[in-house]
Amino acid sequence: MTNIAIMGHGTIGSGVAEVLLKNGKHIALKIKDEINIKYILDLRDFPDSPYPEKFIKDFNIILSDPEIKVVAEVMGGLNPAYEFTKSLLLAGKSVVTSNKELVAQKGAELLEIAEKNNVNYLFEASVGGGIPVLRPIAQCLAANELYEVQGILNGTTNFIMTKMVNDGISFDEALSLAQQNGYAEKDPTADIEGHDACRKICILAALAFGKHIYPNSVYTEGITKITSADIAYANFANCQVKLIGRARLTDEGKCIATVYPAFVNNDNQLAHVNGVYNAINVFGDAIGNVMFYGPGAGKLPTASAVVADIIDCVKHLHARKYLSWDDADSSYIADYKDDTVRLYVRLTAKNDRLSVKAKAEQLFGEIKVLGRNGEQDNELAFITPFACEKELDKLLEKLNDCDIISTMRLI
Amino acid sequence: MTNIAIMGHGTIGSGVAEVLLKNGKHIALKIKDEINIKYILDLRDFPDSPYPEKFIKDFNIILSDPEIKVVAEVMGGLNPAYEFTKSLLLAGKSVVTSNKELVAQKGAELLEIAEKNNVNYLFEASVGGGIPVLRPIAQCLAANELYEVQGILNGTTNFIMTKMVNDGISFDEALSLAQQNGYAEKDPTADIEGHDACRKICILAALAFGKHIYPNSVYTEGITKITSADIAYANFANCQVKLIGRARLTDEGKCIATVYPAFVNNDNQLAHVNGVYNAINVFGDAIGNVMFYGPGAGKLPTASAVVADIIDCVKHLHARKYLSWDDADSSYIADYKDDTVRLYVRLTAKNDRLSVKAKAEQLFGEIKVLGRNGEQDNELAFITPFACEKELDKLLEKLNDCDIISTMRLI
Repeated sequence: MTNIAIMGHGTIGSGVAEVLLKNGKHIALKIKDEINIKYILDLRDFPDSPYPEKFIKDFNIILSDPEIKVVAEVMGGLNPAYEFTKSLLLAGKSVVTSNKELVAQKGAELLEIAEKNNVNYLFEASVGGGIPVLRPIAQCLAANELYEVQGILNGTTNFIMTKMVNDGISFDEALSLAQQNGYAEKDPTADIEGHDACRKICILAALAFGKHIYPNSVYTEGITKITSADIAYANFANCQVKLIGRARLTDEGKCIATVYPAFVNNDNQLAHVNGVYNAINVFGDAIGNVMFYGPGAGKLPTASAVVADIIDCVKHLHARKYLSWDDADSSYIADYKDDTVRLYVRLTAKNDRLSVKAKAEQLFGEIKVLGRNGEQDNELAFITPFACEKELDKLLEKLNDCDIISTMRLI
Repeated sequence: MTNIAIMGHGTIGSGVAEVLLKNGKHIALKIKDEINIKYILDLRDFPDSPYPEKFIKDFNIILSDPEIKVVAEVMGGLNPAYEFTKSLLLAGKSVVTSNKELVAQKGAELLEIAEKNNVNYLFEASVGGGIPVLRPIAQCLAANELYEVQGILNGTTNFIMTKMVNDGISFDEALSLAQQNGYAEKDPTADIEGHDACRKICILAALAFGKHIYPNSVYTEGITKITSADIAYANFANCQVKLIGRARLTDEGKCIATVYPAFVNNDNQLAHVNGVYNAINVFGDAIGNVMFYGPGAGKLPTASAVVADIIDCVKHLHARKYLSWDDADSSYIADYKDDTVRLYVRLTAKNDRLSVKAKAEQLFGEIKVLGRNGEQDNELAFITPFACEKELDKLLEKLNDCDIISTMRLI
């Protein structure tokens, strides 16, 4: 029997307990060992819980109990999760977590401490909820030089955009609906402004390319400005609008990491990922392209990933070492504006649409003009050829007699 | 340094050598060990190879060399791969393979021998080519009770059907095209009759549910009878025609395993998997649905999976034990005709289409009548309600005055 502790009894924490209790026998048969939840740490009271004897409020009980070898940190937030995790690893206990904020900020440091103390720090649930993605990248694609990861990393925003497309409603209406369904928080900033997706692309990039990327070095743009007009133009172009977290290595080995809404071509599997689902595309030199798809959040799916990490720790009490990356200096990050892209541009001509179109053709060369139902007379939407984004920006500045309403990149 | 041997220098075998040589430094950095190809076993001569000194023709050199701890069996076929693998495992050497035929026939036995000898028998490349799917199922979804796996498991047939849809060509034309592109063998039987997909669903079901299923207990139907009319009706029904390998547990814990072309609803991610790509949907009680997508065949993608298994073996010379299943008796397999399904039915009325339609409505209750461009006057296509397939068959027998041209199940 292996004793474990769970820190946090919110949505994910209670899901972890539920999965361990429900599928405990089945898991014990598989791993020939029984996993016993000895403590659940939470400052709140849970008088109606079926296992009231497990609840404690003092972290030091877990830290000082030599019987506890594995701890699930499902509290979320930077503090005190960071201090707790550090203390546990230093005390020779393995920690598994769903805490993307902590891993994105402190992953390199905590992994190093874990390795030095010959224990594990695992965080499969921190990206893509229940989707197996970090372990498959680290283990199953180990033969590859990986050069790009891109994904739909936030279920809330994908739900909002799917609703905008399918039901023809506005961003604000779709956000309300997401809040009513429990998919969005009262304060939805972290989701709709892309911060949550940003943390996840940091973790994916670190694992895929071996160097830590900090959230503040990722260009991050949310979905609040997307309108039904943009979505209609995307459909005209055989694309879907999706919030995409993306990291890729340049030929010089630098990393460009971004989070922004993009036109995703229907040939890309990500275009067909709808509702609260997530999906991650990974590209490597031998494998080409693989994609991992599934529920990106939710109590039981996320618990599924946390419990898989617990099982891995129980089976291998000493460090597995397959997850690791180094810290990186600022020269590792390349300016995303140096990337080569195609831009979708939507504008309103101040006077004459045709003369703006002629000017755009003169500036960009061949442009692909888009259409939509209900298009205004002075409205023009088009897609530029591939070019360095800085160059495209300069050309756009030269496009006079119009107001540029929105631009988006194609991936 | 760890010495390995590769048995077979065909497409996959040469790919394994290529990946190990190309990415060798990178891999060595990751695993802090160097992998050295000491022998390549092949009866043919490769005078132009850049590493002629590695080639041998005598299997016993590998078997008797105590330096060889890990062997990649990429010869294919049942014999002598079976005898070689057994001897190697008994001699305490780990074996990794892409040989789906061998794993589907002898997996339970070889896994047992491996476990008894404290070595590994790994076969990630045997299903889905390069797609990480077996290890993620076994490790990342270990917290779940899995109850269904379904997938597009054969790239050749998916290429053929994609071409039929996109280019409006016939099965025979699409098959020729696949042969010209090197996606189909001269004798394409194993692919187009579903035998290849059958082996893969056996392996997936064994891993997901813990009991071996033999290919001859899987109902298997190929794609040779599919016509453009079926494809057009599928589109009308918001579906795509795909060759689907599927295994699910009944409420009584029995297994229904099948390979057949099916109508796949566009809401199912499998509907959007085109060309030579494969994808596997997995369903579990905590996770819900996850999907793994990628190249289902090809030299380097398959080599990517084989080399990942080699790396795993080198890092863990003793048995990992995460892959294992028991043998099962015949009572484990349930009759697929007892499954509850909806059927697509296409028929030609001998006299009057409307009277056949009226009779079908009388027999089945509500039916969904389909349409297509170029429909003949006496042609009728419809989808039945959900019912036990045996019952649906009985009702179809009662449908007089018509010839039933084709039926397909919906998934």
